Amino acid sequence: MSIQTQLASLQDQTIEPWLTTALEGVEARFAAELTSDLPCVNRLLEHIERYQGKMLRPRLVLVSAMACSQASGKPSNAQQVLATVVELVHMATLVHDDILDEAHIRRGGDTINYLAGNETAVMLGDYLISHAYHLCSSLDNMAISRSIADTTNRVCEGELLQLANRFNWSLDEQSYFEIVRRKTASLCGVCCQLAAELGGRGAGVAEGLYEYGEKVGVAFQIVDDLLDLVGVERTVGKTLGRDVDKGKLTLPLIHHLSTADKASYDAALLILGKSKDDSSGQLSRDQLDEIHKLVTDSGAVDYAVDWASRMVVQAKAALEVLPQSPARNVLSSMADLVLTRKF
Amino acid sequence: MSIQTQLASLQDQTIEPWLTTALEGVEARFAAELTSDLPCVNRLLEHIERYQGKMLRPRLVLVSAMACSQASGKPSNAQQVLATVVELVHMATLVHDDILDEAHIRRGGDTINYLAGNETAVMLGDYLISHAYHLCSSLDNMAISRSIADTTNRVCEGELLQLANRFNWSLDEQSYFEIVRRKTASLCGVCCQLAAELGGRGAGVAEGLYEYGEKVGVAFQIVDDLLDLVGVERTVGKTLGRDVDKGKLTLPLIHHLSTADKASYDAALLILGKSKDDSSGQLSRDQLDEIHKLVTDSGAVDYAVDWASRMVVQAKAALEVLPQSPARNVLSSMADLVLTRKF
Repeated sequence: MSIQTQLASLQDQTIEPWLTTALEGVEARFAAELTSDLPCVNRLLEHIERYQGKMLRPRLVLVSAMACSQASGKPSNAQQVLATVVELVHMATLVHDDILDEAHIRRGGDTINYLAGNETAVMLGDYLISHAYHLCSSLDNMAISRSIADTTNRVCEGELLQLANRFNWSLDEQSYFEIVRRKTASLCGVCCQLAAELGGRGAGVAEGLYEYGEKVGVAFQIVDDLLDLVGVERTVGKTLGRDVDKGKLTLPLIHHLSTADKASYDAALLILGKSKDDSSGQLSRDQLDEIHKLVTDSGAVDYAVDWASRMVVQAKAALEVLPQSPARNVLSSMADLVLTRKF
Repeated sequence: MSIQTQLASLQDQTIEPWLTTALEGVEARFAAELTSDLPCVNRLLEHIERYQGKMLRPRLVLVSAMACSQASGKPSNAQQVLATVVELVHMATLVHDDILDEAHIRRGGDTINYLAGNETAVMLGDYLISHAYHLCSSLDNMAISRSIADTTNRVCEGELLQLANRFNWSLDEQSYFEIVRRKTASLCGVCCQLAAELGGRGAGVAEGLYEYGEKVGVAFQIVDDLLDLVGVERTVGKTLGRDVDKGKLTLPLIHHLSTADKASYDAALLILGKSKDDSSGQLSRDQLDEIHKLVTDSGAVDYAVDWASRMVVQAKAALEVLPQSPARNVLSSMADLVLTRKF
């Protein structure tokens, strides 16, 4: 099925109106949680609302909830709160990630660090994560709070592991996937798992859905990393080439360095070496184009695309813990759409 | 009573051995919570442990718990967990504050941002706050989790309000205290309040103890701000003069600017203006000495010391919700000791 057909079928799903209403509910809860009595805080929060994109993580919660529902009612209060909490967590990581990446553009607009300085971005990220836990603690369910905090522990570990490997040009695939599983995939996995648990499903279904979400998360990150290397800034909507600038090796480059012939290896390393020495901290457009050509010619881009595709196949296979339903079909389509970065 | 006599009397208290044991328990729980399977994370955590100072906030929890205890047993598991959670929260704020202040020294050692870069400091702070919530959620008590998250919301608001007022040389006292109450005093207040609630005390005692902790927190921050302006770096153990460098007005300077004669006002503003323009982002020793002399001569230092002293008097008065006990006496002595920065 082509991506276009899949998109159309996603629109046609009987649960689409239900999902639209549920996502509006998440947006309302999100806004209600983030209201301050301080005008200076509210001004920052207004800016943050523009960061909201396709809401992949709330969708993972809500559609998983629907797929696990015995009846076809609306998501429970707890599931809606959970969907809002994971979006708050995600938003906090975006704000702090932009500091780490010294990024200036996010979803086509200025980043908080660019607009108001790193200090404000640090504190605004803290404010968002604090509100995530605050909202989560409104649920009368300590297991959910524990699980969310356990996940944010892992997300931070993934980020710290990545930082510890900056400018490590011999980073291997195993370490890359360890980083990705922690910093990105664990939150996606837990979205689906907790939705299942709140839906009263047993460990088998919850574990299956964790695997689905985790694999979707890995695929998402591979595609995100690919776009940073070979994407078009205007389409992607954020500063590109930051991974190389900041010494972060991602899958295509790892594969290139470990398989390319000597000339091609040396050419890549020469540019990567410059990224560390360059006082501007930013590679030129020409240098990025050269990297682009190297990883395309050596087949490293195809290799990373294949990896992401395999993750999507595995994610969809993990859905077999669920009975057939329109919601399960939507989860399946969502996995496919990650490849085209519709999320 | 002289400070020396107070210190001696603190040592003599019958609860001192009890408190020492309880604080060792907090340290053990702190270390147990912060164990990672990643060596790169553990190396950072080892460095962080050196930040632990007098543990003011865990002490506030534990001694409040003792003062509220009907029997004189050891603190409950929940009270010990709470004492560890507030230290984790505090440690996270220290790591992020050092980024905001571009500080290089903390408790006589290098800061994480100086040692490993701002990016790592952002993530390590996030890791610490995540573990604070994680540990808190191990308690079967949603009200505590909610209250801690509500407090961290307020702490972040205080920091954001302070950042929004950088280089605002007409910041008034009321706004200064609003910042201090949120960013520092709210956590101290909640330490005492929650210890009382966990000790089964009613709203009257819990509110009284919140007031005690809040006033202690305000006094602590006034003294901290004073030391940044007129302290000695080797004694204080951290980079000084950062408030002025970063455009943060504190009580002595606010008072000076609002009361000094024109010559003295202009002299202060000239130096403050330079702090914004100076490309090094740091005032010279001579400039700091001049500020020091100005605020001393105008009586602004005495004014701030008086404010802190009044806060301590009010903190001690708030303790009257409690019956007389050795633990209540220790709380009273702790308030006095904040003035001499033994905490």
